Amino acid sequence: MKKTTLFIVAAALGLLAWPALALAEESVISEVAFILNSFSFLISGVLVMWMAAGFAMLEAGMVRSKNVATICLKNISLYSLAGILYYLIGYNLMYSGVDGGFIGGLGLWGPDDAAALAGDYSAEYASGSDWFFQMVFVATAASVVSGTVAERIKLWPFLIFVIVLTGIIYPIQGAWSWGGGWLDEMGFADYAGSTIVHSVGGWAALTGALILGARKGKYGADGRINPIPGSSMPLATLGTFILWLGWFGFNGGSVLALGSADAVIEMSVVYLNTNLAAAGGIIAAMVALQVIYKKVDLSMALNGALAGLVSITAGPDTPSPGVAVLIGAVGGVLVVLAVPLFDKLKIDDVVGALSVHLVCGIWGTLAVPLTNSDASFFVQLLGVVTVGIFVSLLSALAWLGLKFTVGIRVSPEEEHSGMDTAELGMEAYPEFGQGSQKLR
Amino acid sequence: MKKTTLFIVAAALGLLAWPALALAEESVISEVAFILNSFSFLISGVLVMWMAAGFAMLEAGMVRSKNVATICLKNISLYSLAGILYYLIGYNLMYSGVDGGFIGGLGLWGPDDAAALAGDYSAEYASGSDWFFQMVFVATAASVVSGTVAERIKLWPFLIFVIVLTGIIYPIQGAWSWGGGWLDEMGFADYAGSTIVHSVGGWAALTGALILGARKGKYGADGRINPIPGSSMPLATLGTFILWLGWFGFNGGSVLALGSADAVIEMSVVYLNTNLAAAGGIIAAMVALQVIYKKVDLSMALNGALAGLVSITAGPDTPSPGVAVLIGAVGGVLVVLAVPLFDKLKIDDVVGALSVHLVCGIWGTLAVPLTNSDASFFVQLLGVVTVGIFVSLLSALAWLGLKFTVGIRVSPEEEHSGMDTAELGMEAYPEFGQGSQKLR
Amino acid sequence: MKKTTLFIVAAALGLLAWPALALAEESVISEVAFILNSFSFLISGVLVMWMAAGFAMLEAGMVRSKNVATICLKNISLYSLAGILYYLIGYNLMYSGVDGGFIGGLGLWGPDDAAALAGDYSAEYASGSDWFFQMVFVATAASVVSGTVAERIKLWPFLIFVIVLTGIIYPIQGAWSWGGGWLDEMGFADYAGSTIVHSVGGWAALTGALILGARKGKYGADGRINPIPGSSMPLATLGTFILWLGWFGFNGGSVLALGSADAVIEMSVVYLNTNLAAAGGIIAAMVALQVIYKKVDLSMALNGALAGLVSITAGPDTPSPGVAVLIGAVGGVLVVLAVPLFDKLKIDDVVGALSVHLVCGIWGTLAVPLTNSDASFFVQLLGVVTVGIFVSLLSALAWLGLKFTVGIRVSPEEEHSGMDTAELGMEAYPEFGQGSQKLR
Repeated sequence: MKKTTLFIVAAALGLLAWPALALAEESVISEVAFILNSFSFLISGVLVMWMAAGFAMLEAGMVRSKNVATICLKNISLYSLAGILYYLIGYNLMYSGVDGGFIGGLGLWGPDDAAALAGDYSAEYASGSDWFFQMVFVATAASVVSGTVAERIKLWPFLIFVIVLTGIIYPIQGAWSWGGGWLDEMGFADYAGSTIVHSVGGWAALTGALILGARKGKYGADGRINPIPGSSMPLATLGTFILWLGWFGFNGGSVLALGSADAVIEMSVVYLNTNLAAAGGIIAAMVALQVIYKKVDLSMALNGALAGLVSITAGPDTPSPGVAVLIGAVGGVLVVLAVPLFDKLKIDDVVGALSVHLVCGIWGTLAVPLTNSDASFFVQLLGVVTVGIFVSLLSALAWLGLKFTVGIRVSPEEEHSGMDTAELGMEAYPEFGQGSQKLR
Repeated sequence: MKKTTLFIVAAALGLLAWPALALAEESVISEVAFILNSFSFLISGVLVMWMAAGFAMLEAGMVRSKNVATICLKNISLYSLAGILYYLIGYNLMYSGVDGGFIGGLGLWGPDDAAALAGDYSAEYASGSDWFFQMVFVATAASVVSGTVAERIKLWPFLIFVIVLTGIIYPIQGAWSWGGGWLDEMGFADYAGSTIVHSVGGWAALTGALILGARKGKYGADGRINPIPGSSMPLATLGTFILWLGWFGFNGGSVLALGSADAVIEMSVVYLNTNLAAAGGIIAAMVALQVIYKKVDLSMALNGALAGLVSITAGPDTPSPGVAVLIGAVGGVLVVLAVPLFDKLKIDDVVGALSVHLVCGIWGTLAVPLTNSDASFFVQLLGVVTVGIFVSLLSALAWLGLKFTVGIRVSPEEEHSGMDTAELGMEAYPEFGQGSQKLR
Repeated sequence: MKKTTLFIVAAALGLLAWPALALAEESVISEVAFILNSFSFLISGVLVMWMAAGFAMLEAGMVRSKNVATICLKNISLYSLAGILYYLIGYNLMYSGVDGGFIGGLGLWGPDDAAALAGDYSAEYASGSDWFFQMVFVATAASVVSGTVAERIKLWPFLIFVIVLTGIIYPIQGAWSWGGGWLDEMGFADYAGSTIVHSVGGWAALTGALILGARKGKYGADGRINPIPGSSMPLATLGTFILWLGWFGFNGGSVLALGSADAVIEMSVVYLNTNLAAAGGIIAAMVALQVIYKKVDLSMALNGALAGLVSITAGPDTPSPGVAVLIGAVGGVLVVLAVPLFDKLKIDDVVGALSVHLVCGIWGTLAVPLTNSDASFFVQLLGVVTVGIFVSLLSALAWLGLKFTVGIRVSPEEEHSGMDTAELGMEAYPEFGQGSQKLR
């Protein structure tokens, strides 16, 4: 009888080993998945943070030397403000209790990992890693704006606009889609933000350019368009390389996971499609430039690479490699056509950001249904249009409010002498070019 | 009877499945943790290595064009020497058998992973990954020095000082805390090295600046302080962005683990606090500059970002996001106040490294007890002071020894014509600025 | 009897828990290993992609300002073409069914992860991650070429050569070794490509330099060698730092795994040896320069660092740290000796790429047997020679074919005025140097 009891207990333990085994396995997997998902957010986020440096170098290379220090300052401070605002208000406005609606809640963001620290890994990632990854995206949208309105906008009013954009405009439209709002419920597909990030920056920049007006001397009274070459092509090239590099984090991190074989397979496809779209963008732009102008302009070619990147961003996971090249190539050609078009409309965009981020942001979003059967062209168009209207309206309000209070444009004298001496009291290259002329 | 024996064996096996299960689970976890811990060291180490490029670009942008090639050479060669010295002597001096004492042992470092290769993962990481991560920190301390003493120090004597700093001074004081020495036993808290790395570089730089003297023309006979603007603000901006990026590895890698959910949660907090402190630093510096000087100087704003980063480095894991912003902001304001103060004392610091790394290194270390109840203000102060005295004394000895043997300062003529022609026989920008003037 | 049946079933289940346990453990490990292996390919690949920016900055700093925009365009477009060609033809030519032979198959590459998506992780990594990592290596080989033939080669013919190199020449010789061809079967050891990547770029560059001829004015009629200094030493320094950083991915990713403790231990050794060889290279070059020329030329010192990196690339896993320093140091000295030698032979290599990538590529390959007992000096030499002959012959054919059809060299007038105005109709620095002189 004793023996029998022993047998029963032993057999029961043998039986129980099975569910225990399953549980243990699951818990191993889920903790490792939790780590890997979070680590992917952090590393990808670092790459996207690096894009802020890319925008800074691209824009520093594309403006004249008399405005270089100012554009550097704008880029590093807008990145900083984006982070602070996203902590103060943005994250919760975008992600807290949107539930199919139009807007989230108010409140400071703070890390909350109590469950995971107690061994429950159902959150799937550390809260801080998610915040960090989302934060760097906000900054990207703001970076788009600074390039378009460069060389004539005042420093502090620009930064106030950045506060409005990153604290209010971006998070609210972001709530509609990534925050689980109405657009998401309709099935809007924007993998890493052709619309949600790039076109948002583009619309904000477009309204800014319209309200601010063109740089003095850009458009002659006789209708002539005067090219204003950038001061440093190697810096513009460096900026483009940095952006390309950062884009692997931008699109690759948007898998939002690394804790399963499926996730890393998807990430691999995203990486290679992102690279091939950029390659298609620059090669197509170069060929188009050679055919149309018989010369290959470097700054336009660089924009071709960026155009390819923006174009693939809405759906880098579904195209085959060849289709990714084509999506990027169409973007590259679009930029070559759009830049002179904006000039014809006398919309002065210093670095071509509207052609890259707005035009290709729209193209990329509308191209998703070509390879993703879950996306519908109508919903994609609806997303593009509603986001465009919303961002344009609020941006216009903000720009106009600033214009009629503190003013947004430097004086003609300041514009002539350059933002650096006017706004910062310094020069970017005191020993070269304009700087050295004064020294002599 | 046969049946009974079978039952007993089967039941025993069923029972034994439990500890086997636990062991297997643990071994899976421990191998994966071993991999992830090591990989974190490698990837974080790569980011910190990148900071050497950041210092190079920051300093290349902050010096005059006639000294740019030399400062580039100093930065890349000091990084190289730091690695070689840390292999030859530094690592073991810092980590081998310190045991609550003041100094480790002598001897070349070499990888030792025999246990892990045999399946025992109790070392928790690959020995080489740890060495790599520790090595890049030494280099950072040395990088701090080159900026302060730029534009007047001889190349080879500077590199000899780097050998002393990275081979002897840094490792010995590092043994006190990170090496498990007496300061560690007292509970000194310096997460990623506000004191151990940044203030060490700062003290070494301060003694160097005092013994070397100011650049010719910096301080007029009439007490006037002449600003000497740097030659390239975009390079200085790029350098700051690189440092900011690298700091995620610097602070984030200092979790010293990635193999558990707890570790990645901590790493996420460290990442976002690091970013927010830098953001707080630059925005506070900009506001302070606008209020005090009515203009925002870019180079000072960049130092504000770096000040925020140094300030949070002693304790990036415990503050809430808002407090991290504030810790950084205080650092940003401190830099704006400290730079003119050093100038008033006629301590000529070319890039503001003393204000950033020494002043904010102290501030950051003393701020730890505000959010970390395990740290005591007294022990923090004791660490700051003892490290400061030790490093200053040994650095002064080294600088004076060099001064009275090989000499440390170039001749006034060489200083006037620039280090690049004097020491390297070349120019950084032969077609621009000073270079092009000569060509004409 | 009922009881007995229960016992038997229970005991059987208890017994079965053991193999189930082993299976489950293995499956956890294999999925995690699959993820980590793939992730290592992606992250390492991103670092290698970044090397394209490094070559661009190094070369932009080493050429005269009138050729900077063109060299930037060449570098970013060659990276793009390499990716497209490797998708169209290269990957399969190198890896598909080589089986001890000389060449793979034809056909577009596409991701194939059906097995892993179904839970069979025996492929060990995501197919796309492998393609991405291999692709960036092709681009590196092409990047080597652009530096040597800079300042005189036409844009489009150069890009056609890049197509031939990355689509045909590189993949075929790559099939011999990494693709599992005849050289691999003989035991040729080239861990990350001292021969397969760097010397391949070097041979292609050498034939190009010979067929293209030297820049006008480089070699005087009287046998004088005229130094032509590069336009920006900080950009050259930045490029070197970028390459050094990227090399951690280049060599570290070549472990081809991260899913075991053994792999990460090996990766750690590779990282630290790579760093120490670069350090040894630059310090040795500096000392050699000081001894021979009494001055330390920065551009030569930078090449010393790159020489160390190329030298360790064939075998970064087997040397002890001290031997890694020495292997790099020999490379550094070789560069200091080789650069004037090429000049004596009137082979005009704008950036010193032949000395770095070809000479040290050979040295690194032949040095493997010193620390790796699996490698034989004879087979190493055989690999160096056969790859050299194959690449030189096909490259010569391609260069000559281009020369006698579309032409490869710009006109003497275009060379004098600079590639930027001639080929792109723009200037890299319109406000500085040559540009600003024209403006006045």
